Amino acid sequence: MMTTYNFSAGPGVLPEAVITQIKQEFEKNEHTHMSIVEISHRSQQFQTIVANAEQKLRQLMQIPDNYGVVFLQGGGSTQFEMLPLNFATKQQKIAFLDSGNFAAKAGEAAQQLGKSVTVLASTKPTHYQSLPALPQDFDATAYDYLHIVTNNTIEGATFHQNNLPKTTGRLVADMSSNILAEPYQVTDFDAIFAGGQKNLGPAGVTVAIIKKDWLAEQDLTGVGPMMRYQNHIDKQSMYNTSPVFAIYALDLVLDWVIAQGGVAAMHERNLAKANRLYDYLDQSGFYTAPVEKSARSLTNIVFTTGDLARDKLIAKQAETQGLFNLAGHRSVGGFRASLYNAQPMAAVDALITFLKKVEAEQA
Amino acid sequence: MMTTYNFSAGPGVLPEAVITQIKQEFEKNEHTHMSIVEISHRSQQFQTIVANAEQKLRQLMQIPDNYGVVFLQGGGSTQFEMLPLNFATKQQKIAFLDSGNFAAKAGEAAQQLGKSVTVLASTKPTHYQSLPALPQDFDATAYDYLHIVTNNTIEGATFHQNNLPKTTGRLVADMSSNILAEPYQVTDFDAIFAGGQKNLGPAGVTVAIIKKDWLAEQDLTGVGPMMRYQNHIDKQSMYNTSPVFAIYALDLVLDWVIAQGGVAAMHERNLAKANRLYDYLDQSGFYTAPVEKSARSLTNIVFTTGDLARDKLIAKQAETQGLFNLAGHRSVGGFRASLYNAQPMAAVDALITFLKKVEAEQA
Repeated sequence: MMTTYNFSAGPGVLPEAVITQIKQEFEKNEHTHMSIVEISHRSQQFQTIVANAEQKLRQLMQIPDNYGVVFLQGGGSTQFEMLPLNFATKQQKIAFLDSGNFAAKAGEAAQQLGKSVTVLASTKPTHYQSLPALPQDFDATAYDYLHIVTNNTIEGATFHQNNLPKTTGRLVADMSSNILAEPYQVTDFDAIFAGGQKNLGPAGVTVAIIKKDWLAEQDLTGVGPMMRYQNHIDKQSMYNTSPVFAIYALDLVLDWVIAQGGVAAMHERNLAKANRLYDYLDQSGFYTAPVEKSARSLTNIVFTTGDLARDKLIAKQAETQGLFNLAGHRSVGGFRASLYNAQPMAAVDALITFLKKVEAEQA
Repeated sequence: MMTTYNFSAGPGVLPEAVITQIKQEFEKNEHTHMSIVEISHRSQQFQTIVANAEQKLRQLMQIPDNYGVVFLQGGGSTQFEMLPLNFATKQQKIAFLDSGNFAAKAGEAAQQLGKSVTVLASTKPTHYQSLPALPQDFDATAYDYLHIVTNNTIEGATFHQNNLPKTTGRLVADMSSNILAEPYQVTDFDAIFAGGQKNLGPAGVTVAIIKKDWLAEQDLTGVGPMMRYQNHIDKQSMYNTSPVFAIYALDLVLDWVIAQGGVAAMHERNLAKANRLYDYLDQSGFYTAPVEKSARSLTNIVFTTGDLARDKLIAKQAETQGLFNLAGHRSVGGFRASLYNAQPMAAVDALITFLKKVEAEQA
């Protein structure tokens, strides 16, 4: 079979070693006599998996004890609702920096819940190719919190740790597409969440990291039990039936990240992968990577020939070379190469070889 | 290896053929070059899986076109919140028949959401060993809907199709532990839901079947987008990233049910399995199956020796014979043998053989 690479923005590529392990372990376990999809979420085996996964994530991200770590269902979109319900209870106001589609979507969800939403700044007019800046006169006390998306999965601009907005108030981060891909100081945030299906495992599990003192302050009248972080924290992610398989697979991915050397090693690798691709694109006269250099994503590399119809044909042609899912998000077109942790350098090299060949033929 | 059986109330046993198929298909698919946990929820492959799963469920349950069918995350507990948010918007009042823990829990969730909850009848005082009856003076117009749980997973009493409460108003059913295990007339209900992890597949997916005309009547001010059924129906269960693996596995389980002959065949088999066990228990002088005969569950068979400490020891001893998860729910003790669709008659026979041996030794 041809060597193939999956550049999907997620659900996307998982470590090959993890895929092999899941397959190997899929039949009845020799101790429990059940497959992983048949064990109870109340079983000792699963309780151990959850406890281990939490400890591994704490270790990888250096999450202190005053933060709760939970594995939930419903994806980032459910977090867009849980966060306002749990935390926008005093001012009933949330500040957003609009750095892309998923910031806008989170704002819309909060508004539907009856919360007041202020977009402090937006880079939408320039197609999200740079980051919105926190206004100097931002009054954090007027809002329950500031919501940011660390990495824009669609257009590829990133608040890296060194260009995070500095607020004196509470800060919430959607890290769905770059959690564990580069280092963040957890203590700079009051809540962090990430859908599982990019750097953490398969679709079907979402991580939430919540500062405990913040929860204690809230009045949750009218909020249902499943939407309360405290319930999930109190029950160690087993408030109701957990998504057993997704958490099991996530636990294996965390093992793999640890074996690779943790977040620092992943970051170094991701920098090398992304830089190799950006360097090629920047020197090319054929392709352009439009995102401002200081904000460029390590995980979602966006580029174009400037002709969206041509981009589409090239992305289709790439498939014949074993390079899948290079088309940009349906809302923007162009190309997007997602280089999550599990993406090997060989994928980048194969991509550059292909892009060069196209450039030589068509430029 | 010893032949073993898993009597877990869920997540529990899945068809052996399905487990084998998942394992076989787990490596990179020869057409997509990706494993099932790596494909995008926007891929053609996954869209086909979702569309097929919906069609198969419609076929199996004879669900008419005026009902939406969606695959969601969050389990039954999230349905305890979505239902009040979507449907208790006029009277803001829900009527419950308290036939067990999960009816009570759904009522509590609705109350936390600020809805008024009336328990019309409860069999809690008699340990849920029979079914609560709808009061003759029940005024359906005073409530948005009546909520029932068709099968009590913990104590094992069931509203079978022939003993459903007759209401002139809207009727909602939690079928988590007996969907596809016995026939129900979908048109008798306005909403049906079921967590996946018993008769449908692994944990991590929940089915909701919603009568469309009911949705159109509601005022959903203040309800977030993920909690609105209409959004999920409009987007064919892909409103946000779907739990790809869980839906894939559910689709395989539906294939298996169809291959077995559909719900009628499953029902016949489940009747045979349950009756064989109940018949043994009823003639035994050692064990008692306390649920009233007309309401006995086909999927969760509850029994006891009358001595909970002894029951616990016997359930432990059963494990040495390859019979797992026979202990009753932690809230009630005793025994519970879950005989979901995937449980073979051989499991029942092995269980009876074991129970007889214990009876001979200890009675």
